[in-house]
Amino acid sequence: MIHGAGDIRIETVPDATIKDATDALVKVTSACICGSDLWPYKSMEASEHGNRIGHEFIGLVEAVGGEVTKIKIGDLVVAPFGYSDGTCEFCHEGLQTSCVHGGWWATGDVDGGQGEAVRVPWADGTLVPLPVGEDDALMPSLLTLSDVMGTGHHAALVARVAPGKRVAVVGDGAVGLCGVIAAKRLGAEQIIILGRHPQRTSLAQEFGATDVVAERGDEAVERVRELTDGSGVHSVLECVGLGESIETAIKIARPGGAVGRVGVPQDAAIPGSRQAFRSNVSVGGGPAPVRAYIEELMPDVLEGRIEPGRVFDRTIALDAVPDGYRAMNDREAIKVLIDF
Amino acid sequence: MIHGAGDIRIETVPDATIKDATDALVKVTSACICGSDLWPYKSMEASEHGNRIGHEFIGLVEAVGGEVTKIKIGDLVVAPFGYSDGTCEFCHEGLQTSCVHGGWWATGDVDGGQGEAVRVPWADGTLVPLPVGEDDALMPSLLTLSDVMGTGHHAALVARVAPGKRVAVVGDGAVGLCGVIAAKRLGAEQIIILGRHPQRTSLAQEFGATDVVAERGDEAVERVRELTDGSGVHSVLECVGLGESIETAIKIARPGGAVGRVGVPQDAAIPGSRQAFRSNVSVGGGPAPVRAYIEELMPDVLEGRIEPGRVFDRTIALDAVPDGYRAMNDREAIKVLIDF
Repeated sequence: MIHGAGDIRIETVPDATIKDATDALVKVTSACICGSDLWPYKSMEASEHGNRIGHEFIGLVEAVGGEVTKIKIGDLVVAPFGYSDGTCEFCHEGLQTSCVHGGWWATGDVDGGQGEAVRVPWADGTLVPLPVGEDDALMPSLLTLSDVMGTGHHAALVARVAPGKRVAVVGDGAVGLCGVIAAKRLGAEQIIILGRHPQRTSLAQEFGATDVVAERGDEAVERVRELTDGSGVHSVLECVGLGESIETAIKIARPGGAVGRVGVPQDAAIPGSRQAFRSNVSVGGGPAPVRAYIEELMPDVLEGRIEPGRVFDRTIALDAVPDGYRAMNDREAIKVLIDF
Repeated sequence: MIHGAGDIRIETVPDATIKDATDALVKVTSACICGSDLWPYKSMEASEHGNRIGHEFIGLVEAVGGEVTKIKIGDLVVAPFGYSDGTCEFCHEGLQTSCVHGGWWATGDVDGGQGEAVRVPWADGTLVPLPVGEDDALMPSLLTLSDVMGTGHHAALVARVAPGKRVAVVGDGAVGLCGVIAAKRLGAEQIIILGRHPQRTSLAQEFGATDVVAERGDEAVERVRELTDGSGVHSVLECVGLGESIETAIKIARPGGAVGRVGVPQDAAIPGSRQAFRSNVSVGGGPAPVRAYIEELMPDVLEGRIEPGRVFDRTIALDAVPDGYRAMNDREAIKVLIDF
């Protein structure tokens, strides 16, 4: 539960139960803390009752409602960071984050993902069974399919990464690092990571980044131009969400290039309108429909071609979650896995 | 020449001549006034010496430099609204508006298009010969290939118009009207024109618009939603450039949709960042590389499948150009053709 900025508490809440016939009840086996959880951790107003929190988890199905047909009791499943019915026009188009019956964990009467059990609405549309046991060594990488790996992949798709393209990734958090993996996987020729944390940018290089730019703002723009024969990159993955980072993303894009933004925007407007227009640079992106990407990315995880689980550099038990938030917020940890 | 807001004058300037070996000298036979010429006409500070103006013209080639090989003396040619070398990487990619040697009419020592003759830099890259004579009845439609028809087409491509899609066009000026033609040509199923000038929206309907929305702002958003089963349109062609029109464009886009903007942006930021993000709506566009589209669109003009020349509702001689600006600025005329 989060009760306000910096105030994460472990509390006993009513047991999750099946409410609707399309629900499943999932006993969480692993979960994690997201960079986007740090926004309320930094800024939420104090609240007496507090809110649930967490939106990434893997778990065992313990019960299903009468209308659930695909998901079975005993399945080990991964949940995307939003739930979706799997049947509406947007789900059919692969944009489950705009599902007409969809929604988000830890909102309304829906459980948060950082807890022992979760009632999952629209279980057949939402959950994806895993073909391995809960003690499998690949569990950290499979857990990233619930958000950060699919989110990095989304940024790369929106930024139109393709074989031979020059790519920049703005932000060296877990999503940015997964963006590097996604860009490499899609065939990028050059991958520039913009970040200033050596431990993170080193990992980015192991994932396939060819260049590191530690500068920010106009210095970063100049440095990227130097690295790209003066023209900028075809594709920019914006994995921060601040005005400055979006403006940098637009400025380092090559004419005709594309910015795929997945960092939750903290401002009401997109800066750099005239710059983007002059260069015919498009700005797209949003909440990643990770549900659409799980089946595509999972074989690469299972066969060891990508290792997004390496973004986890700390594993904790449930009672250490408050300290896990502190560690991520203090940049002591890139991403924290909660092992139940 | 423009000397300031509202101050257009006919003046005698030095004769256009060949300066570089890649130049051509074109005697203008027809030109026109653009909606974007109205921005300086509304707001330019008074200037003693004045600036050239105009960027859309057709004319006869009277002389060519020593390195011009494709364009011949006597050719009737259409000029795109920018010049480009035709050989750089951006020209090869079809983004001639970012040509490394390119530029704009009426800037620096480059002549404006609203004049009797123009020195054309990079003639082989810039000009496209027309297979008809200067008195051909199709001349108005061919003249739109210099800007507005190609610009509407660009908006439609960036907005990802395709067969069966729902489309909205924001703005009922000449570019918006050509956007309707482009959307229809690309197979759109529904085309909603947002505009409040009955004469213009009627023409839009003749061009293929299926619905007219005269409201603005949130009322326009509501009306478009009513017309689209509540979801909005797949593709929005933004043909105005004001903050309000861009925000409307984002709000009427369906989740996962695309906004193609070709209205020159009048503000430094793009509003509606969070709305666009939430719905995964992309915002792209910029100066249209009309040079890339002339060969594709010309057969449709020559064979009568599209009639973009109908956006011209007034034809004047050179000495009436000041009044032509006034008429367009007062919305008496949609677009004014100058017959030399």
